[in-house]
Amino acid sequence: MGQQIYNFNAGPAILPQEVLVKSQKELLNFNNCGMSVMEISHRSKDYEAINDSAISLFKELMGLGDDYHVLFMGGGASTQFAVIPMNFLSKSKTASYVDTGAWSGKAVKEAKLFGNVHLAASSKEKHHSYIPALKDSDFPKDSVYLHITSNNTIFGTQWHQFPTTSVPLVCDMSSDILSRQLDYKSFSLIYAGAQKNLGPAGVTVVIIKNDLLQKCSDNIPTIFNYKTHAENKSLYNTPPVFPIYMVNLVLEWIKNNGGLEAIEKTNRAKQEAIYDALGQNSDYYKGHAETSSRSWMNITFRLPSEELEEKFAKEAKSGGFVGLKGHRSVGGIRVSLYNALPLEGAQKLAEFMQRFRRAN
Amino acid sequence: MGQQIYNFNAGPAILPQEVLVKSQKELLNFNNCGMSVMEISHRSKDYEAINDSAISLFKELMGLGDDYHVLFMGGGASTQFAVIPMNFLSKSKTASYVDTGAWSGKAVKEAKLFGNVHLAASSKEKHHSYIPALKDSDFPKDSVYLHITSNNTIFGTQWHQFPTTSVPLVCDMSSDILSRQLDYKSFSLIYAGAQKNLGPAGVTVVIIKNDLLQKCSDNIPTIFNYKTHAENKSLYNTPPVFPIYMVNLVLEWIKNNGGLEAIEKTNRAKQEAIYDALGQNSDYYKGHAETSSRSWMNITFRLPSEELEEKFAKEAKSGGFVGLKGHRSVGGIRVSLYNALPLEGAQKLAEFMQRFRRAN
Repeated sequence: MGQQIYNFNAGPAILPQEVLVKSQKELLNFNNCGMSVMEISHRSKDYEAINDSAISLFKELMGLGDDYHVLFMGGGASTQFAVIPMNFLSKSKTASYVDTGAWSGKAVKEAKLFGNVHLAASSKEKHHSYIPALKDSDFPKDSVYLHITSNNTIFGTQWHQFPTTSVPLVCDMSSDILSRQLDYKSFSLIYAGAQKNLGPAGVTVVIIKNDLLQKCSDNIPTIFNYKTHAENKSLYNTPPVFPIYMVNLVLEWIKNNGGLEAIEKTNRAKQEAIYDALGQNSDYYKGHAETSSRSWMNITFRLPSEELEEKFAKEAKSGGFVGLKGHRSVGGIRVSLYNALPLEGAQKLAEFMQRFRRAN
Repeated sequence: MGQQIYNFNAGPAILPQEVLVKSQKELLNFNNCGMSVMEISHRSKDYEAINDSAISLFKELMGLGDDYHVLFMGGGASTQFAVIPMNFLSKSKTASYVDTGAWSGKAVKEAKLFGNVHLAASSKEKHHSYIPALKDSDFPKDSVYLHITSNNTIFGTQWHQFPTTSVPLVCDMSSDILSRQLDYKSFSLIYAGAQKNLGPAGVTVVIIKNDLLQKCSDNIPTIFNYKTHAENKSLYNTPPVFPIYMVNLVLEWIKNNGGLEAIEKTNRAKQEAIYDALGQNSDYYKGHAETSSRSWMNITFRLPSEELEEKFAKEAKSGGFVGLKGHRSVGGIRVSLYNALPLEGAQKLAEFMQRFRRAN
């Protein structure tokens, strides 16, 4: 080793170094019990303390009260694409979706298996380069929910102002949960696969308001009913203990580092560094997203040629900047700036972008 | 610390010490890439090597050919209780189940949501203390599958001779997979949550024969269709990377220690040690399972009183034997002897049982 690595992977992604170091230190002997955290019962006091802590930290960081339940479920966000409509949608009902990219497209596809899907808006005609403005008239008032994707990892767009509506707002926040201060109370259901801002892959957090929870269908498999997990504090079956343990450490790290106010401040500076480098070389680096829809988490851009993109990714990698190749479906370069990436990483990459542009 | 701990937890359970030490050693820098295995892309070459290795080790250890697919899915075995009938059962069809305990009961309950369930046999009338003998006439020949649970963790029973039938045999092997030599080719689908014999909680392995795979319904959510995972080598979506990485290390450990032949030999000696201690004190320790149905993995017994059971568990814990309390639904003592528990652990516990009986 020796070389400093800056990890820009889109997910699974960078974890806070302090968290990794702590998990390594106690990997063979958790809480002085003589066993690894992977070897203890999910019904033990030690695990219950982890579970309780993670639930309460989510609520504290997001400013949510007891009218919300925090659930930890196996599988990823792709599982929730099916589980959400399974709980709330049926043949006689309609759910509304906003299509802002590949992931919302997949969510739409799964929902159609369960009932009617109304497409409230789509950015497809402009290759998902923007977040559509949403009017109340864009979707039926009796929609069982309105589904949006707060950040689009592949196209590099992000919602900066959320719809205000009486329809329950359901949001896939997999790639920007806890990255900024938000009125989290305006959502009825938030879900997020852990592997971007929360921890390692293997667990999905589902945060659901009690009003909506009461509407879960009773005629579905026990394991997919949100009520099952709410009533059992996510201990109906064996949860993915180690991923949840890691999520709890990440939440503690966020809290100990100033909470969402501080996280947002650092994330603001990180994206500014990269977008400034793009802006100063806008004849060379072409950003994909429209300015007002730019993501703070995933910045996607092209270079004048695929050869230069290849060279960029290769030289970046030699310099210690890993994970910059764009998603296979769009190509180009993608810079992922999740919470755990230090500001220095973004600044150093911005300098590299300037150097690369001057040399090529 | 200082005291040697013997971990008899029923699941999540003990992991091989060598595996834990290796994972700790490389936790911050996997394969010299400068990142944790938790921070690398599931589309990277490093992860692909883990995935390929785990798939091929399962096939090698179980003696399975290319007509089998090895899938890694999020969630636990409880998820499969619903996903199996979702794939193969419908309102006009019948699946047959053998009810040998709490877990098979849960599997039956979920299957009923999807179609007709035929109860081929049940041991319920004797508090699940035995494995029923199964005749061909016990279930319809056109059953879409016959579902059994090879080992019953709560009641301590285990199948020692499997049904021979033309109906596809589906088996929940969560608690005894890879614990013995078996004709694994006689099963059409084997599934197992990892947290007993395979690794940490958070991933379930599904091993499915190609004939059965072709019968998966196409009208179900993409993420629950086994074909999705077979066609994408379990990389349709982000898999639970760290749990799978750990499973691969456990499989390597099994192979390096002589494969299933050696594992079976040790497991045989472990259960003999405990059942011998029971047999020599049969007026004191009352085993729950009938002799011919005894489990090698989970040995359940009662003491003359609940007070003595309480005392037994407490004194055992002080002596370093943890996780011996029976499941809350049956009480008593449960000794779990999964692969990773060294023979010495079972021998020492047998000695403790003798001492305890003499003193109490």
